[in-house]
Amino acid sequence: MAKTNIKEILIGKPFPTSMDVHERLDKVRALAVFASDPISSNAYATEAIMSVLILLGSQALSITMPVGLAVAGLVLLVVFSYIQTILHYPGGGGAYIVAKDNLGRFPSLVAGAALMTDYILTVSVSVSAGVRAITSAFPELFEFRVMIALGAIAVLTWINLRGVRESGTIFAVPTYAFVSGVWLVIAIGLVRYGGWFGAPPIPVVEEIIPATVSVTGFAYAWLILRAFAGGCTALTGIEAISDGVQAFKPPESKNAALTMVAMGLMAMSLFLGITFLSTHIGLVPTETDSILSQMTRRVAGSGPLYYWVQFFTAMILILAANTAYQDFPRISYFLARDNFLPRWMQNRGDRLVFSSGILVLALIASLLIIFFQANEIAMLPLYALGVMLSFSISQSGMFRLMGRIAHLKPGETLQTEVTEIHYERNAKWKRVLNALGATVTFSVFIVLASTKFLDGAWIVLLIIPLLIFMFYSIHAHYERVSRALSTRNLTAEQLSEVADVVIVPIADVHRGTLRALTYARRLSNDVRALCVVTSQEMKERLLRRWARFPSITEGIQLVTIDYDYRDVLPPIVEYIERVNNIEFPEKLTTVVVPEFVPTYAIGGFLHNQTANRLRRELRKYKDIVVIDIPIHIDSKI
Amino acid sequence: MAKTNIKEILIGKPFPTSMDVHERLDKVRALAVFASDPISSNAYATEAIMSVLILLGSQALSITMPVGLAVAGLVLLVVFSYIQTILHYPGGGGAYIVAKDNLGRFPSLVAGAALMTDYILTVSVSVSAGVRAITSAFPELFEFRVMIALGAIAVLTWINLRGVRESGTIFAVPTYAFVSGVWLVIAIGLVRYGGWFGAPPIPVVEEIIPATVSVTGFAYAWLILRAFAGGCTALTGIEAISDGVQAFKPPESKNAALTMVAMGLMAMSLFLGITFLSTHIGLVPTETDSILSQMTRRVAGSGPLYYWVQFFTAMILILAANTAYQDFPRISYFLARDNFLPRWMQNRGDRLVFSSGILVLALIASLLIIFFQANEIAMLPLYALGVMLSFSISQSGMFRLMGRIAHLKPGETLQTEVTEIHYERNAKWKRVLNALGATVTFSVFIVLASTKFLDGAWIVLLIIPLLIFMFYSIHAHYERVSRALSTRNLTAEQLSEVADVVIVPIADVHRGTLRALTYARRLSNDVRALCVVTSQEMKERLLRRWARFPSITEGIQLVTIDYDYRDVLPPIVEYIERVNNIEFPEKLTTVVVPEFVPTYAIGGFLHNQTANRLRRELRKYKDIVVIDIPIHIDSKI
Repeated sequence: MAKTNIKEILIGKPFPTSMDVHERLDKVRALAVFASDPISSNAYATEAIMSVLILLGSQALSITMPVGLAVAGLVLLVVFSYIQTILHYPGGGGAYIVAKDNLGRFPSLVAGAALMTDYILTVSVSVSAGVRAITSAFPELFEFRVMIALGAIAVLTWINLRGVRESGTIFAVPTYAFVSGVWLVIAIGLVRYGGWFGAPPIPVVEEIIPATVSVTGFAYAWLILRAFAGGCTALTGIEAISDGVQAFKPPESKNAALTMVAMGLMAMSLFLGITFLSTHIGLVPTETDSILSQMTRRVAGSGPLYYWVQFFTAMILILAANTAYQDFPRISYFLARDNFLPRWMQNRGDRLVFSSGILVLALIASLLIIFFQANEIAMLPLYALGVMLSFSISQSGMFRLMGRIAHLKPGETLQTEVTEIHYERNAKWKRVLNALGATVTFSVFIVLASTKFLDGAWIVLLIIPLLIFMFYSIHAHYERVSRALSTRNLTAEQLSEVADVVIVPIADVHRGTLRALTYARRLSNDVRALCVVTSQEMKERLLRRWARFPSITEGIQLVTIDYDYRDVLPPIVEYIERVNNIEFPEKLTTVVVPEFVPTYAIGGFLHNQTANRLRRELRKYKDIVVIDIPIHIDSKI
Repeated sequence: MAKTNIKEILIGKPFPTSMDVHERLDKVRALAVFASDPISSNAYATEAIMSVLILLGSQALSITMPVGLAVAGLVLLVVFSYIQTILHYPGGGGAYIVAKDNLGRFPSLVAGAALMTDYILTVSVSVSAGVRAITSAFPELFEFRVMIALGAIAVLTWINLRGVRESGTIFAVPTYAFVSGVWLVIAIGLVRYGGWFGAPPIPVVEEIIPATVSVTGFAYAWLILRAFAGGCTALTGIEAISDGVQAFKPPESKNAALTMVAMGLMAMSLFLGITFLSTHIGLVPTETDSILSQMTRRVAGSGPLYYWVQFFTAMILILAANTAYQDFPRISYFLARDNFLPRWMQNRGDRLVFSSGILVLALIASLLIIFFQANEIAMLPLYALGVMLSFSISQSGMFRLMGRIAHLKPGETLQTEVTEIHYERNAKWKRVLNALGATVTFSVFIVLASTKFLDGAWIVLLIIPLLIFMFYSIHAHYERVSRALSTRNLTAEQLSEVADVVIVPIADVHRGTLRALTYARRLSNDVRALCVVTSQEMKERLLRRWARFPSITEGIQLVTIDYDYRDVLPPIVEYIERVNNIEFPEKLTTVVVPEFVPTYAIGGFLHNQTANRLRRELRKYKDIVVIDIPIHIDSKI
């Protein structure tokens, strides 16, 4: 009771399963929950392009806008592709389900492993980045950074365990505050840049920074490609909604698709707005001041708006982790449902969220933070790789699906393994877009993997295959279990018969053992009390006490084994084994073990563990049934 | 099997109980085992006196010999008293048993707690001191000192687990090597001091060190008392043999008494020899060079004998811990036998030693070493307090016993609680000596406790009462257990009757649950398969599969409970509780739980823990019997 109450105080009253739909997210909350990851990337995506281009000198920064437009084009492609995914797979599951339905088991597991890795890293990286923002402001907290990061994870975990609707409400504020703040900055910036409404123009600074590398031809193209790949961090999190379609209020896929459109527009406007303004007012990336911070100060001064944007930038960086809290448990659910992860990962907790997935995510992310000492710079090379891999797999899957749709005639439908597809007019064109998207995202994956391989990307490229191996092993285990439990062609005769014998190991004759013997007599006419005697005094005492209760012990065979060692377990097991194998082969032998139950756990510490050891030992035999007769002691220890 | 083999390789083949007597110690080994603690104290006892007296200036060192003689007198008294204890209590047990038999429960527990504390500290302090000797020689090992100390404890533990005879053999060499080496130094010293056989005289150095304190009257007497109390470290370990009488070959008490005499003579000769020589050749205690080392060098030069004495001094300091390995498990045995410690502490392991006592000692001593970072100086104030307290209790007990003996007439015998006493001629005189011994050792206890209180002695004065509280709590627990299990006035009718019902909670119909149902049908005509259904699909599937096996399910009532939450445990428990309380009150209700047994432990991780949770939950009910039907899966995970 007390235990339940603590749990209830922490995460709230359990919800009945039928309340599921009421616990779903409306579009406003859903946008906040799923968009915090993709939107937070706008805080650094433009800068990621510029910090590569600056190697070619400050005049090369003028290429930022074209590169940014290419990235935006890719964002459009991917958003478009995922809208298709949402509409065709209303059950959710994103890359994993698409790959499973169209490409087969192995690609789907690659996508699953890549996404799981990425979501874990999202939590570790964004929480660490948020904590860095805090410790930059208060350097005396630096030595506690790991503790603060773990505390932040604990809070995120706690709020997410309370249910998706509640966490959606709590986390909506910072997301919308960030977006509206940056929009306002962009709007003021554009007005001033255009000189509209008589606004004062923004002073454009022309700072000349010489190139640090001098490259031509292929190397130049490679650098531009790297700048493009850097800008692709703007894509992280776009897949989030597709994994979580089932978190939406019905009609799920329509609501999800509309939210996806809103998110795409929002992210696109932020990214293009920031990129346009920052390049046209001559900003240059520096170590100490972010592009977004420079832009805000130049456009709107160091007033309240500046602090607003800075504060909510830090907040949304932490909140990007919250998107992972939505999607990691869902991708685990899909994998667990298909027997590639422990089955309990598909169970929903008291508040209808996938509690075990949330806890597993929190645990692994915390371990990463401890291991990397909350240093997100060290973890960054590991990041975004998984997402790019899953994008290319997902788009390849959609490419395949569109191919199947293209073969349908008007009015025709086809049932795939997980969904139903209908004739569509523009399937061929969509297919081309998917092919393009898959190619570009796979190229970005290759660029990221090769440029950051030695910095730590190799860890991800090692972990993904290990995860896949784990998926296969778990699947094989469940296959064996299912074969063993299968009732196909099972007849009653095939189930083991029960031997007409009950063995009751005893150490002494007391109320507990007499109770066990009484119970055993009900089960069989062949009850054997088994006592290993280690000294003559013990034997005499046993026989004396045995004789005192003829009404109970009558008809029970007392088997004593003289034994010259102190550990009585081996002769007991040996006797039971002999009865089971020789006297009653292929039958179920019953053993009654009186079990001492102290009121408080520490009391168990005061008793010999022989009964527990015996029980553990007997579990190994498939034809031995153990009966626990509890003996309760009203005890304070 | 593999497990057994590893254990056998480590600690050797199990000995049968009947081999006990062959595993006992002869006098030569016993002296080495039990004397290493008291003899090792001679390495520093003289110095402990001098380091107090030097505060009065170097000429005050001339009082060392009289103080030493007083200490030696006390040693004689205590040795005498313990010989009496051994002869009157041939079953062993020392201070604890003497106090229990003569003074009552509380004093005996004080003695037990004091001795246990002292033995644990003996291990931590002597091992740390030995490691300090090693790291002084090889300073680069200093940072590994805790690891080295823990390693030394592991080796001591390992050898002691192999049996008392084997450890006695191994550890005899350093003890005798130390004693013979120091004896040789004393002999040479005396010959040269006396100028006998034309030996060259020892150069006597008169170093004048002024007094650092100037005291008179009471303060002067207090300082002398402190010097005396310091010298009383020579007494530590004298009680060891009395605790371990049962480790001797028969006749146990005679052999133990003779060994005690030999040990007393050995310790006395070393102590007086070192004290006499060192004061008569004008040695002065320094920070860096011990008195024993100074004396050896002055008497015998820096040759092989010097290194012999130095090396075996370090060895015997570590080996003092070995005495505690003998006595801590024995005192725990006595306390456990009287239900003041967990009963398993009285069990002997494969090699007939009290393995659990050895392991508990090793564990606590290791924790202390980690806590104090192997710094024995920090632990020294805690040391020797317990021993002095146990001495005074033990002698008070003997005082009482001698009083009872003094009342006997010639030829008369009296049966005390644990031993038999006879008329003795000199009981009254022995009584006077015991009174004197008790008074002096208690005074030393007070002096040590008050001078070292703030240095850490308070910890011991806190731990001893806590241990006594623990003893009482454990005893109360066993009392309750024994009342609950008591068969006094028990009749067959008082044992709970067995209800004619068997409940089988199932989640699905598969080979495992069918096996459980088959078994249940054997036990009762009223078998109820209980299934909590959380969705309509689940219910339909269950009924469909249930109908497939009429030959097994015939006559079994299928109880389904519709439940709108995910955690199915509460309704299952509630149903069972209702059947147990309302349908069959006061009777034993049987629940059959199919238990999934994976071949490897990690497999359990892949399954819902509902069955295990149910079993744990049902243990709390005193009238519910749980039957485990194992389901084995031939699985690689």
